[in-house]
Amino acid sequence: VDLLSLETPSLILDRKKLINNITHIHKRMNKLGVNLRPHGKSAKNINVINFALEGQSGGIAVSTLKEAEYYFNKGITDIVYAVGIAPVKLNRITCLIRKGAQITIILDSIEQVKFVAKKGKESGLKIPVLIELDCDGHRSGVTLEDPLLLDIGHLLNSEEGVILVGVLTHAGESYHCKSVEEIRTLAKTERNVAVKCSEKLRQNGLPCPIVSVGSTPTAIFAENLTGITELRAGVFMFYDLVMAGLGVCKKTDIAVSVLTSIIGHQKRKGWVITDAGWMALSRDRGTASQKVDQGYGMVCNAEGLAINNLIVSGVNQEHGIIEDRIQKELPWESFEIGRMLRILPNHACATGAMYDRYNVIDGSREIVDVWNRVNGW
Amino acid sequence: VDLLSLETPSLILDRKKLINNITHIHKRMNKLGVNLRPHGKSAKNINVINFALEGQSGGIAVSTLKEAEYYFNKGITDIVYAVGIAPVKLNRITCLIRKGAQITIILDSIEQVKFVAKKGKESGLKIPVLIELDCDGHRSGVTLEDPLLLDIGHLLNSEEGVILVGVLTHAGESYHCKSVEEIRTLAKTERNVAVKCSEKLRQNGLPCPIVSVGSTPTAIFAENLTGITELRAGVFMFYDLVMAGLGVCKKTDIAVSVLTSIIGHQKRKGWVITDAGWMALSRDRGTASQKVDQGYGMVCNAEGLAINNLIVSGVNQEHGIIEDRIQKELPWESFEIGRMLRILPNHACATGAMYDRYNVIDGSREIVDVWNRVNGW
Repeated sequence: VDLLSLETPSLILDRKKLINNITHIHKRMNKLGVNLRPHGKSAKNINVINFALEGQSGGIAVSTLKEAEYYFNKGITDIVYAVGIAPVKLNRITCLIRKGAQITIILDSIEQVKFVAKKGKESGLKIPVLIELDCDGHRSGVTLEDPLLLDIGHLLNSEEGVILVGVLTHAGESYHCKSVEEIRTLAKTERNVAVKCSEKLRQNGLPCPIVSVGSTPTAIFAENLTGITELRAGVFMFYDLVMAGLGVCKKTDIAVSVLTSIIGHQKRKGWVITDAGWMALSRDRGTASQKVDQGYGMVCNAEGLAINNLIVSGVNQEHGIIEDRIQKELPWESFEIGRMLRILPNHACATGAMYDRYNVIDGSREIVDVWNRVNGW
Repeated sequence: VDLLSLETPSLILDRKKLINNITHIHKRMNKLGVNLRPHGKSAKNINVINFALEGQSGGIAVSTLKEAEYYFNKGITDIVYAVGIAPVKLNRITCLIRKGAQITIILDSIEQVKFVAKKGKESGLKIPVLIELDCDGHRSGVTLEDPLLLDIGHLLNSEEGVILVGVLTHAGESYHCKSVEEIRTLAKTERNVAVKCSEKLRQNGLPCPIVSVGSTPTAIFAENLTGITELRAGVFMFYDLVMAGLGVCKKTDIAVSVLTSIIGHQKRKGWVITDAGWMALSRDRGTASQKVDQGYGMVCNAEGLAINNLIVSGVNQEHGIIEDRIQKELPWESFEIGRMLRILPNHACATGAMYDRYNVIDGSREIVDVWNRVNGW
């Protein structure tokens, strides 16, 4: 069926663009000689992740235990839960391990080693652990200089209920870079911190088989990943306006969009009112600090082609306001009430989070499939 | 069970505060002599709406047709779908009407009258219609001065498939007022525009039984609602930091919060890392333009009492960063990893939207019930 028969708002995923985006990163990974560990947090869907796993070693990263359980039930066993561990998460993790999943957790403190080791020992398991590293001051992790790295490493190596399997870092600050050159430099730092920490562990007699880095911007601009065993990234599958603003992709690569209906006009103000408010688009304003502020999203026609200078300039819960960046006069006759438009999102993960499913197209307006999303925790 | 046994992040609703908030507005409505039409868009749950309906005439407003269907299945028949109508929504609306619902729609253009009347006629129904008014330039609606008001009124009155039942306006700009005095003035304007438009319709021989106004801030500060037949409001049930910043409620009235676990520290920076990022709190930054910017939320202990000067200063998808507004040094020993905190939201509707259920407490930490939410469209 034609996507114009959908109710609005609805989430649209263009499989053709998705596969192009994935193919592009696979080629980069092959060239750099690194395995891709796709991050399941953007897609929250097995079909998307299966495309991303083609030709890779089969492991993924997740941001919630609900994702971990979902992907495991779909046949994926090697899963990194890439959020610092809290005691309240341990029951579900040991439960997954007992069912045959190889769940690896991350941590950056002695306290965490202690409660994880205790739980592992009580459960008769050795819980695999990566030490989280801080390469750019983004949020969590141990820095290269901090003696804590070796303290954690030694404690992990001496406790029964855990097993040290390596280090992991995420150059999250890459989302705020001001140029491609800055992203290249950060990609170098991300690699260097991970490799040097792995060497430090090994020099001190500690094992470090896994050296994991990753963010979509650094994945696209990294020039050398020697010493890195795997790269994690998620949003590259879909891309979005933040990534386009960074120069990581073209706007025409963006694979997800929100279908909306025009529901009114305020002609004196130059406003087209739609039924896609923040509930449909999210409140993400990631392009606000970029060179071109895209408001709450760029406006396209139903075929997904951008309509010059139109952005979503404001949102309420179930209302969007579309304006031309430059002029108040619009060709109103072509924006009749009921016409459907598509909005490219600032941040694919945040917009996707507002929906329970993707309406899948394949380069045209024809809906070829419906894929569910696993939201929540 | 104690809420500390929940997994994190989770959404907590304090029924005691909820009922206090609802009682307060019921008293105001009684005093003003106006019926409350609770808006179902904040709660998205029948138990909450049933409390809000006590002593009222039984009608509600909704922001999605999924809410309309849900509340109708729970026994509510009088429902205003308070988003300008689009053609793609008409099938579900006529379907609900045939099942016995009294669904009233809103519109502000001749085009909409035409397609709604056509659908009504084809279906052998008279679809009830409110004309949407613009009282404050917020988004949609016809202004008092615009001749369109009478044009729409006359057309509605002459077409077979529709029935004109009145006017509706929403002073959405009240969320951006800078003082209580401004809110009072806007409440007066909201009433005046609605009453004058109703008089204009009646003077021209058109029916206008319903004169509907509403927003939480104007509901709390309106002094005279003579000529108004009903008031719509939703967020007053829960309140949030935006409402507290406006002076509409106290912070201790806020009935919803997000339970989160501490998962790390960056002591040199003064950061406590939690597992409540934007996926758990939403990206809403409604307090950013207020006198006191609450970041992504105010931090409370597990009992819901604010911890001085602590706010969520940053969020990623599944990570929150908590900082003290003033100092970098924290009593780290009392913020141990695994400790649970509660975060008061900027915007209750946006934070609620990230969850499929409420964990209900009743003034203590004891979970007394679980209430589901009807998200999506």
